[in-house]
Amino acid sequence: MTDLTSTDDARIEGPLTHLQSVTFDGPITLELGGTLPRVTCAFETWGSLNADASNAILVCHAVSGDSHAASHGPDDAPGWWERLIGPGKPIDTDRFFVVCPNVLGGCRGSTGPSDLMPVTSPQAAPRPFGADFPDITINDMVDVQRRLADHLGIARWHAIVGGSLGGHQALSWVTRYPRSTKHCIAIATSSRLTSQALGFDVVARNAIQTDPYFANGQYYDQAQKPSTGLAIARMLGHITYLSSAAMDSKFDPDRHDPRHITSSFEQRFSVGSYLAHQGQKFTTRFDANSYITLSMAMDLMDLGSSRLELMESFDDCDCDFLIISFSSDWLFTSEQSCDIVNALTALDKPVTYAEITTIAGHDAFLIDADIDQYAPLIRARFSETHPPAPETTEAEKLILRLIPPGASVLDLGCGEGGLLAELRRRGHEHLVGVEVAQDGIHAAAARGLNIIDYDLNQGLPAFIDQQFDFVILSETLQMVANIETLMEEMLRVGKFVVVAFQNFAHKALREDYVSRGRSPRASGLYDYEWYNTPNRRFPSIADVQDLCAAKQATIHQAIYLDSQDGREVLASEDPNLNADLAILLFSRAKSAEQ
Amino acid sequence: MTDLTSTDDARIEGPLTHLQSVTFDGPITLELGGTLPRVTCAFETWGSLNADASNAILVCHAVSGDSHAASHGPDDAPGWWERLIGPGKPIDTDRFFVVCPNVLGGCRGSTGPSDLMPVTSPQAAPRPFGADFPDITINDMVDVQRRLADHLGIARWHAIVGGSLGGHQALSWVTRYPRSTKHCIAIATSSRLTSQALGFDVVARNAIQTDPYFANGQYYDQAQKPSTGLAIARMLGHITYLSSAAMDSKFDPDRHDPRHITSSFEQRFSVGSYLAHQGQKFTTRFDANSYITLSMAMDLMDLGSSRLELMESFDDCDCDFLIISFSSDWLFTSEQSCDIVNALTALDKPVTYAEITTIAGHDAFLIDADIDQYAPLIRARFSETHPPAPETTEAEKLILRLIPPGASVLDLGCGEGGLLAELRRRGHEHLVGVEVAQDGIHAAAARGLNIIDYDLNQGLPAFIDQQFDFVILSETLQMVANIETLMEEMLRVGKFVVVAFQNFAHKALREDYVSRGRSPRASGLYDYEWYNTPNRRFPSIADVQDLCAAKQATIHQAIYLDSQDGREVLASEDPNLNADLAILLFSRAKSAEQ
Repeated sequence: MTDLTSTDDARIEGPLTHLQSVTFDGPITLELGGTLPRVTCAFETWGSLNADASNAILVCHAVSGDSHAASHGPDDAPGWWERLIGPGKPIDTDRFFVVCPNVLGGCRGSTGPSDLMPVTSPQAAPRPFGADFPDITINDMVDVQRRLADHLGIARWHAIVGGSLGGHQALSWVTRYPRSTKHCIAIATSSRLTSQALGFDVVARNAIQTDPYFANGQYYDQAQKPSTGLAIARMLGHITYLSSAAMDSKFDPDRHDPRHITSSFEQRFSVGSYLAHQGQKFTTRFDANSYITLSMAMDLMDLGSSRLELMESFDDCDCDFLIISFSSDWLFTSEQSCDIVNALTALDKPVTYAEITTIAGHDAFLIDADIDQYAPLIRARFSETHPPAPETTEAEKLILRLIPPGASVLDLGCGEGGLLAELRRRGHEHLVGVEVAQDGIHAAAARGLNIIDYDLNQGLPAFIDQQFDFVILSETLQMVANIETLMEEMLRVGKFVVVAFQNFAHKALREDYVSRGRSPRASGLYDYEWYNTPNRRFPSIADVQDLCAAKQATIHQAIYLDSQDGREVLASEDPNLNADLAILLFSRAKSAEQ
Repeated sequence: MTDLTSTDDARIEGPLTHLQSVTFDGPITLELGGTLPRVTCAFETWGSLNADASNAILVCHAVSGDSHAASHGPDDAPGWWERLIGPGKPIDTDRFFVVCPNVLGGCRGSTGPSDLMPVTSPQAAPRPFGADFPDITINDMVDVQRRLADHLGIARWHAIVGGSLGGHQALSWVTRYPRSTKHCIAIATSSRLTSQALGFDVVARNAIQTDPYFANGQYYDQAQKPSTGLAIARMLGHITYLSSAAMDSKFDPDRHDPRHITSSFEQRFSVGSYLAHQGQKFTTRFDANSYITLSMAMDLMDLGSSRLELMESFDDCDCDFLIISFSSDWLFTSEQSCDIVNALTALDKPVTYAEITTIAGHDAFLIDADIDQYAPLIRARFSETHPPAPETTEAEKLILRLIPPGASVLDLGCGEGGLLAELRRRGHEHLVGVEVAQDGIHAAAARGLNIIDYDLNQGLPAFIDQQFDFVILSETLQMVANIETLMEEMLRVGKFVVVAFQNFAHKALREDYVSRGRSPRASGLYDYEWYNTPNRRFPSIADVQDLCAAKQATIHQAIYLDSQDGREVLASEDPNLNADLAILLFSRAKSAEQ
């Protein structure tokens, strides 16, 4: 029988027993010109602020969430990020002072449309704002949170963390107050909504505002509230929070066998009884005007669409970034996270990005199994120590010889980040890795490195011309399908390019091929069967030299190695035959003067 | 400035000046148990029925379409498939008698909820069915169309064609009346809705039914109709008809600059003014009860979800199938079309399937540019002659030697279908091709062959165990990443497997590699640069023999060719060195007795 509960069911229901609040007197001018006479900010906290107020983490909630991100002890109800926040957890309340405020415009204690308006004359009866609540923006939410930070004595957050609308708040914080935090962690979010997401919000607001009980937003003294419109808005929201595959797995087994619930909404299909249940339940805990206010604030969020606009938005930021998206999230897509990442990398901002593979859709940021996938990245961000750099490989040792002290380095296909960790140990500061394998991303992130999750076959759109002193492609060339594009891109992004690769024309491979008459194999990268090798290309030293020439790149230095004998092969000793490993340093410049 | 018009705007508006109609007296019992006293079917026709009534094509419209699929002359308004239907067009009205009925339950002349109910007593005033219109199914729509066919003297359609809900009708026709048509062409459709699509329909119906003017469906004598709910339902529909990318390209350039239209709906964003305009306009031409009736019929459509259920549904069908999907259609996905195709292929039904690449989303089936992509497939289906089989290649000639007369053949990576066309010329009847390149699919379909569009790297899920006498993989092995799976799958699906491939250990390649020290090249399949070859694997004859042994397959026959000298290489003459082309015939059986 279909489970009618949703991700946040168990967690966002009860009274907020640990709620604190503070009221700031105004008048307070809002971004779009409206004013509020005063603003109350309700919030919860966990842990203790340390002496220099440097251990505070701000957690921002999503559109239907609230301040109860985690329990305050065994007797307290679990919160919506219970898995992430608590003693010893990734957001460790033994170490950090965690603050989660209810957003401005909501209905959980912070100022919102259901609050009473200021009385303009002594005779007038007080009435709620309703639809007269001024239009607010995400920046306005952030401004209230900033007042809260002042009130708590926090000049700079250790981190600002949020998912969905919470992620919008995190991004607004760092663009509006560039020095306000050390870390910015934005999950399942975007710089602006897609037109599709905007369309869904428009339909949802229309459903609420055309509900006859909406009464232009002044429904608070009515027996009947605009619950039908609000329930329909929520039903629509629920569809967008789930992937199509997740909906099929939840509702298809008993598609034609709905749960019978008391509802005036259609309940012909199991998905219908779920939506009816969720829609109705939402109306018991949420205010229709707040829904309109918050969804409009979200829709107005716009840090830019082009990379240039996004670069302008993030230009002054003084924090590092952790951006996380979910593969099946179609409301806030991975492409949108990549847009942010591409702007940040182009600005040389420290950023790690990972796309988590899941069928859960947008809701993944709240689901324990998916939290378990991304939590290590957050834990690593907050870790003060990192595992030591591993032993460098033979190829890495040779590459390191070519990299002058202090040079900035982009390592393509960086794996677990061994080379970058060694470069950091040697004092290099501006280091970025690109990797597509989830294991590698996690391991490199655990080393505290900045790692971007993407496929080299799409080129290097995240990076701008001549952004790095060195672009390194070590033992990865053979796995790239689109080598010509990548070659162009490496020469565009790097002042110098270093490519290390196993030579497919090494005599051992030639001999193996000629004598066995089979697709050649050798230990190392070519130690696979012909039918299951992850390798896609089979370059020899001469091949790569030819390609450099075709791309007008000058090879400035070359190291050839016979790794069997552990000796270097000189250029005069036919390295294409005698070396099994080559490292070429090249660029479009005629000389290697740096 | 945002264009507020939609795909069907220009075409589904005016009065139906060429409408004909016929009324069938009842009582008529419906699939879910309801009855109608009589049923009127309104329809349009084009062209003339021939003497033996063998040239009639039934065109079925989508949920908000109608009988006006095409104009009836230069003075008539264009129809929604104007590009496809007319003199000399793919559905050629010079050759065919085309019939397009308005569906049962709609509001364009055929019986629907806005019609008057039978009067039960002489005193009672006649009133429309409203919500008392009985629940109908797609099968009920089809049954009325079948009465129409009888009325027109059509015992068997030449073809039944439809997109979206029209595709549902086409599929219902052939499952309910298996001998009713020669061709079934189902576009952008499915055997049942996804849970997500079902969810959207539930929300849309809830919006209509909770509109206070809905009045339990008896709103016809009211001044106010449930237009708000209907408009909201339509807004939601519009979002699902477009892809997210198409919405961005249409609305993002002037996102914050809506067109100002007269509407009570929100118009803050350009996408909002579009949705408001489309929602409102729809209420002037569509009946809310019809919307509920038709969307519920669509939601109840269920030919099965598992392949076994689908195979049961289609088991008796006596037609061939053309199934077309669109890459960006997320309402009726390509995966859903593949589910149908996989069931049909498992049943040995003649079927061609193509996924058209487009960003237009579900609407693509109505858009001229996309019609131009799929129209040739329809034209080919209706063509009585096919281009002659092309000259067979050297490899194909050798393969043909191995295929006994009359054998059934599956050709994997069939390209333009040359080998299959030659087999057909030789009298083979059960022939199927699989191809992933759109050009190849179109060329093979133009030859009148049955071609399935999919990627061999996913295995052969469309086919059942031992379905074909021969599975052929000709000059394709080197492009497959997942060779091990494909090998298993070929042995599962074929009684015998024939693999033809260029030998990567041929002496010319060995010599080239050893002497040049570069990734080896030879004329033919290996005539590419190392960095841009489409080849993914580099098998020698010995490699493939090894793999056969590892997979417990016995090689029954082998042909080795030195194509330079045009002579066969004997097994005793070291073919792995001396042959550049090999054809191996193998199976899991110990002997080649067939």
